Amino acid sequence: MAKPAPSKLDSVIALAKRRGFVFPAGEIYGGTRSAWDYGPLGVELKENIKRHWWRTFVQSRADMVGLDSSIILPTAVWEASGHVATFTDPLVECRQCHNRFREDHLIEAFEEKKGRAPEGGTAEIACPSCGTKGEFTDPQQFSGLMKTYLGAVDNETGLHYLRPETAQGIFVNFLNVATTARIKPPFGIGQIGKSFRNEITPGNFIFRTREFEQMEIEYFTPAEQADEHFDSWVEACWNWFIDLGISEENLRKFDVPDEERAHYSDATIDLEYRFGFQGSEWGELMGVANRTDFDLGSHEKASGKSMHYHDQASGDRYVPYVIEPSFGLTRAMMAFLVEAYEEDEAPNTKGGVDKRTVLRLDPRIAPIKAAVLPLSKSEDLVPISTKLADELRGLWNVDVDTSGAIGRRYRRQDEIGTPFCITVDFDTLEDQAVTVRERDSMEQVRVPLSEVTGYLAQRLVGA
Amino acid sequence: MAKPAPSKLDSVIALAKRRGFVFPAGEIYGGTRSAWDYGPLGVELKENIKRHWWRTFVQSRADMVGLDSSIILPTAVWEASGHVATFTDPLVECRQCHNRFREDHLIEAFEEKKGRAPEGGTAEIACPSCGTKGEFTDPQQFSGLMKTYLGAVDNETGLHYLRPETAQGIFVNFLNVATTARIKPPFGIGQIGKSFRNEITPGNFIFRTREFEQMEIEYFTPAEQADEHFDSWVEACWNWFIDLGISEENLRKFDVPDEERAHYSDATIDLEYRFGFQGSEWGELMGVANRTDFDLGSHEKASGKSMHYHDQASGDRYVPYVIEPSFGLTRAMMAFLVEAYEEDEAPNTKGGVDKRTVLRLDPRIAPIKAAVLPLSKSEDLVPISTKLADELRGLWNVDVDTSGAIGRRYRRQDEIGTPFCITVDFDTLEDQAVTVRERDSMEQVRVPLSEVTGYLAQRLVGA
Repeated sequence: MAKPAPSKLDSVIALAKRRGFVFPAGEIYGGTRSAWDYGPLGVELKENIKRHWWRTFVQSRADMVGLDSSIILPTAVWEASGHVATFTDPLVECRQCHNRFREDHLIEAFEEKKGRAPEGGTAEIACPSCGTKGEFTDPQQFSGLMKTYLGAVDNETGLHYLRPETAQGIFVNFLNVATTARIKPPFGIGQIGKSFRNEITPGNFIFRTREFEQMEIEYFTPAEQADEHFDSWVEACWNWFIDLGISEENLRKFDVPDEERAHYSDATIDLEYRFGFQGSEWGELMGVANRTDFDLGSHEKASGKSMHYHDQASGDRYVPYVIEPSFGLTRAMMAFLVEAYEEDEAPNTKGGVDKRTVLRLDPRIAPIKAAVLPLSKSEDLVPISTKLADELRGLWNVDVDTSGAIGRRYRRQDEIGTPFCITVDFDTLEDQAVTVRERDSMEQVRVPLSEVTGYLAQRLVGA
Repeated sequence: MAKPAPSKLDSVIALAKRRGFVFPAGEIYGGTRSAWDYGPLGVELKENIKRHWWRTFVQSRADMVGLDSSIILPTAVWEASGHVATFTDPLVECRQCHNRFREDHLIEAFEEKKGRAPEGGTAEIACPSCGTKGEFTDPQQFSGLMKTYLGAVDNETGLHYLRPETAQGIFVNFLNVATTARIKPPFGIGQIGKSFRNEITPGNFIFRTREFEQMEIEYFTPAEQADEHFDSWVEACWNWFIDLGISEENLRKFDVPDEERAHYSDATIDLEYRFGFQGSEWGELMGVANRTDFDLGSHEKASGKSMHYHDQASGDRYVPYVIEPSFGLTRAMMAFLVEAYEEDEAPNTKGGVDKRTVLRLDPRIAPIKAAVLPLSKSEDLVPISTKLADELRGLWNVDVDTSGAIGRRYRRQDEIGTPFCITVDFDTLEDQAVTVRERDSMEQVRVPLSEVTGYLAQRLVGA
């Protein structure tokens, strides 16, 4: 039987590893599913997404400011937020092989396969590891918080947690920010940073990892305006993905039903992307939640410090409601890669066509904005190329590629999403001009050397 | 007796807290000395420093690429690097009050005070906590690594460490990067990210914290070029600080003597800044080390994977030497704040002068690039101001301040380092122009509304 063709998702993952977007963390020691390392192209793509998000949602809005709070906050923060008590999953252990699994995941997998619930809890279920049936222990609650110890002794006084979300760092700074930034509700605080969750089953490439990056907004509003801001944040988030190239057919809203929502949420709408996973194609990209006054109220109670905002103009004192748009950064990066990946054809020098792989990334997030390609390694062409590349590097991330046939170099740049290739050829010595080729249309135009920066600047606005 | 005037450092710390550059982490729960939270101005300043560093040392150089590796790497990485065995400090405990201290710090403090070494180890030293003399236990080695546990069980198989330096994530990816980026030594890999060290005595504001950010470069070179690259990196780092406004008189090189260098280093030069700490004024900003082939060699031995670079042109196979420029990000931020802080005088409306505080930050790193100030809250001026601010926000981080006398608003912007204030006044309605005031010279010019963006763009190059 022929091997099935790789899915688009498989192709993207293979490309990401082969070209140095993403490596398994600590690969020389066997790697880990907990996290991934981002190579030269991956770090540029990821930083571009962060920067564009920050510009859109923080810097370009008068009602938003930024924050960068710590990963390790006082333990009291996580007690007040409810994470210490309730951020847990039910775990069962196979008595035969001692591997542990999430009970709800075992039951879901059984239901998906058999079309019905298992009888007697896990009694009918075979261990995914050793195959023994029905030998699972009763479930025990297992914390998703990752612990660490600070200070000179390893005991409870030193016990701290790595944050499982950046949000709480925003809540505990709410009044600090409102006061020092002289800003009043409705206003929001944006933050980008790492969070940590002890996921039992990390997987799906960079989709679910134990160490991950979030881009979160907590938008503080009088309660009576909460619904209106909830709707406009859902729309703003949707538009952000569409504007950066996600197509409407691959993006959908999921109105999370009451029984599936987090304890703090009064309403949640997730945006899901069609990643093309096996089983369910769709995966959560981000969610907008109405966290009400739950968090500020909890911290007010636990800390004894007032979380009431005092509006000096109206005299009102109140605990604001919070609308939370929460994005997974590496999930967004994965969605942009999947969306951008395409295989099409490009003309070759023999009058025929070659297969090519192209990443149609928006130029604003493409890791490399332009590649300078001297047609040969001749002593005439290399200095001109170097000089041009150095000039362009003052503004953008620029590559120089000198090796192989020009068609092969185009293929290399196409598959990493470089919007422009600039060829320095022997005519350049005469006409002081270069050929600029655009990635998607493959159209080529001759541009004077002195005008290349201006030509690119017009086409790389915001990049 | 009169209270002594606050030092410049004290004034900077007070300003940073008051204006929302830096807050104690989790302040409503009493804060922690382990880490700090960066408020709206702090996060912009910090990100600007990172971005400028990345542009200078990664994007604008043909011999550099970037990386973003994980905080939690396989434990084998830290065994191979020597951190598990040797990243320790000698700790003694007071038998009376059970507080613990670093033995070397106790001895240093004694020597500084008495001008001689204590007799009999710690026998002569009084406990800094309870005052009891000579009741310390023998020293025990205490690890500076912060532990955490991954997976479903809290035992040795799940034991992992939070990275104490970003460097090892670069070393283990050396061949992945060289291969996928098609780059050969001499070349370097730059990385910015958080690291964690279980410091016994964090302190001096954001200078020494348990959670901190590093900007590190590992520059891989044939051994025979190592000294030359060492020298040029020391110079490049020095120039970076000077270019961003640090004065030569506050920056110095410290050639770390043999007995104080880390075990992996063949030569280390630290750059120190005159922070103005009590006791020693100077503090380490960054260091350049010649790590030889120690790290790649250790990983080759431990992982069984070759770390030899194979130069296909010459046929050479060798383990490169590594030159490491390692910067503390928040130390750099603190140095820029201290250097920029000044108290001088500004003319007031009564023909006299007022005292003013000004942060003379380089415009490229200033958190806010321009503030739009409508002279009054009149219905005529506010819409013009809003429209102008929205236009400028497309390019820069911009503030609008509508409250208080204009002089007071200038003071507010001066003390956070905003390079330009733009006043919209009643003449604006007639001449469609605004007054642009520069922070340092306090000079004012009238600029047509339609030319403000261009005017600022010329003066905010690279910002």
